[in-house]
Amino acid sequence: MESKPPLNIAVAGLGTVGAGTLQLLERQAERLALRAGRRIAVVAVSARDRARDRGADLGRMRWVDDATALAALPDVDVVVELIGGADGVGRGVVEAALAAGKHVVTANKALMAEHGTALAELAERRGVGLGFEAAVAGGIPIIKTLREGLAGNRVSRIYGILNGTTNYILTTMRETGRDFAEVLAEAQRLGYAEADPSFDIDGVDASHKLAILASVAFGRPVDLAGVYCEGIRHVSKLDIDFAEELGYRIKLLGIARVTDHGLEQRVHPCMVRHETPIAAVEGVFNGIVAEGDFVGQLMLEGRGAGAHPTASAVVADLVDIATGRLPAAFGVPAAALDPLPGAAMERHRGAYYIRLMVLDQPGVIADIAAALRDQQVSMESMIQRGRAPDEAVPIVLTTHDTVEAAMQQALAAIGRLSTVVEPPRMIRIEDL
Amino acid sequence: MESKPPLNIAVAGLGTVGAGTLQLLERQAERLALRAGRRIAVVAVSARDRARDRGADLGRMRWVDDATALAALPDVDVVVELIGGADGVGRGVVEAALAAGKHVVTANKALMAEHGTALAELAERRGVGLGFEAAVAGGIPIIKTLREGLAGNRVSRIYGILNGTTNYILTTMRETGRDFAEVLAEAQRLGYAEADPSFDIDGVDASHKLAILASVAFGRPVDLAGVYCEGIRHVSKLDIDFAEELGYRIKLLGIARVTDHGLEQRVHPCMVRHETPIAAVEGVFNGIVAEGDFVGQLMLEGRGAGAHPTASAVVADLVDIATGRLPAAFGVPAAALDPLPGAAMERHRGAYYIRLMVLDQPGVIADIAAALRDQQVSMESMIQRGRAPDEAVPIVLTTHDTVEAAMQQALAAIGRLSTVVEPPRMIRIEDL
Repeated sequence: MESKPPLNIAVAGLGTVGAGTLQLLERQAERLALRAGRRIAVVAVSARDRARDRGADLGRMRWVDDATALAALPDVDVVVELIGGADGVGRGVVEAALAAGKHVVTANKALMAEHGTALAELAERRGVGLGFEAAVAGGIPIIKTLREGLAGNRVSRIYGILNGTTNYILTTMRETGRDFAEVLAEAQRLGYAEADPSFDIDGVDASHKLAILASVAFGRPVDLAGVYCEGIRHVSKLDIDFAEELGYRIKLLGIARVTDHGLEQRVHPCMVRHETPIAAVEGVFNGIVAEGDFVGQLMLEGRGAGAHPTASAVVADLVDIATGRLPAAFGVPAAALDPLPGAAMERHRGAYYIRLMVLDQPGVIADIAAALRDQQVSMESMIQRGRAPDEAVPIVLTTHDTVEAAMQQALAAIGRLSTVVEPPRMIRIEDL
Repeated sequence: MESKPPLNIAVAGLGTVGAGTLQLLERQAERLALRAGRRIAVVAVSARDRARDRGADLGRMRWVDDATALAALPDVDVVVELIGGADGVGRGVVEAALAAGKHVVTANKALMAEHGTALAELAERRGVGLGFEAAVAGGIPIIKTLREGLAGNRVSRIYGILNGTTNYILTTMRETGRDFAEVLAEAQRLGYAEADPSFDIDGVDASHKLAILASVAFGRPVDLAGVYCEGIRHVSKLDIDFAEELGYRIKLLGIARVTDHGLEQRVHPCMVRHETPIAAVEGVFNGIVAEGDFVGQLMLEGRGAGAHPTASAVVADLVDIATGRLPAAFGVPAAALDPLPGAAMERHRGAYYIRLMVLDQPGVIADIAAALRDQQVSMESMIQRGRAPDEAVPIVLTTHDTVEAAMQQALAAIGRLSTVVEPPRMIRIEDL
């Protein structure tokens, strides 16, 4: 049964995910040998700090100071890149490994989002595998699901909660009634958010993941530049309360869908009906829904980050390689990726939630209504709670489906009204 | 790119799933050729009724009256068995095909639950693939997820809503406040339940699926006989109302978990906390949660039945075969399946919900409490709503964790009390 030689791997980067991967490979060695039909052996590693305890025995592994040099080791079959970063050393390691005819497994979402198509082409030319399950949604096997499990489907839309930090913040804001800044500070203390949180809370991380997912789901070259991106800094406690009242939850979603104008890719806070499955994905969990013409709606929910879940994804890719399962990186040969055009955000069509802080004076609502009418935006509901003559009070509006460009013009006009005392806040309502 | 010869398949059985499969293969032919690297061509079919419209062009397919004869066609690479039944023609077709060295794809859960291990051994001996994604949970790629996506994990528990008919009935009972018999009749009118519904509502269908899932999740020979099975006939409107009051939803779950006594496999109605993800899986949807030591909790939710979702699963298996991905049927070689012993249901340990109809007389609760105490069953809560002296009123109890055998003895003793006027109803509380 185990007559095949071991699959020899080299690991570049021994941070949390790297350490988790070594732990998994050590603890499950027997199980993996059975599942893969051969042993998976770590023969070399590279990291900055040699002294740190990784919770696994590094004794029999060669230590290589220059990660890129791992690609040149003749006995290495697979290079596992866990350094990160769209450019720099991580990219260098991956390119060198592929060029040397080594299989690559990576958790590097920035790299795949920026250079995924070129890397897939390179892997294909060299006849090697390029696995990146760990780059999207941690332990959730969404890449395999899209590429293989849903191979018989034309996907029309894929959307999901792709960033646990922002989902934790939004969930905690709703559950505790606290404000964004306070919850963010707590998330930083708990280690759920970075000291510089902008990568998460401004939607950059989710955009990387969405660009990769869209490529696999739609068989299209990765197009990070085509992702419209908006974070959660402007979501207030007030919006969360109004969302509840209207039957919605606010989630930072990444959404890619086929429209009449091409492929729409966007990351922004959304109002989603509270009874939809994605609304129930709370805290640090990730959840992804794929809509296929035969399968219907399929949702996967699980841990989108962390050393062990991410290691689970890295090792799944290794087992695929060990057993000779080497699907095209994005499901179809790179040359067959379809350059379906990207749809401009101005042409997005959907419903909107708008919150205004206005002076409580006669005629305010008439002015707002006129600004909407001038852009052919049709109101669906309006809430004004409480009265406080000549003070600022919130007004909330929802619209019927309308075009983004018209909505933006109407918001600009509303923002110029003298009775509107803060910039208008807008959150898109997603029909799921 | 398409230099490889087509993958030639023969389809045995053209009921709803067979027709859906032909439709998918026809409509997505180009997409599949790209994903599989070769065309997937249906060269022969067999079914009872030749005249029926299958919504796909059967013009160029050979019609074979005897399904078993498909296995003998020299130009056929894969036989797709969509006839069903643990024995009879479906089994004959699968065995003949494997023996003839053809790959097999089947949606036949009864067959896989009864004879899965032997079929896996046969496939292995002949070096062919045996795909049965469609046999469990329709369009949800749970077999692939367990076998490949979670290859790096030791699974400790897997559970799920594996039968859409019963989930529809339970959901509708809760939402409408109607009783079991009435909702079942409606489900039959709507085509969600069969004229003879026992296969679904007595948990037989879910047991088949659980036995298959447990085998893949735990790398153990399929053991249908080891599945404890209880259906939903006894779940009443009253129980659903009490569940809500206690913060639970009632779901028919299939659960397999590793215990100190071996592998527990059971299908029965469960009380699950209403905030758990599985509680939110409603209507005809299926949902499955796998708990792995590295991935943590992973949930998949989607359509567990129907022509098109099931066809999606059949075709995913065909694409795997077309690209040469032929994993061992249950994830590890048949000879390596671990005969982890099965745990007897009497040794199950968990909490319980008990509903009694008692005469509203002094001393009733003391008698019940004594019967529980005699078996060392510890009460967690008790509800008695309303008073109606000398009439029958419901009493609901929940217990702390206790052993099934003790619980059953206590229930028998309680049932013998003269003040208890109906057989006690018990629903297990599942800690998820």
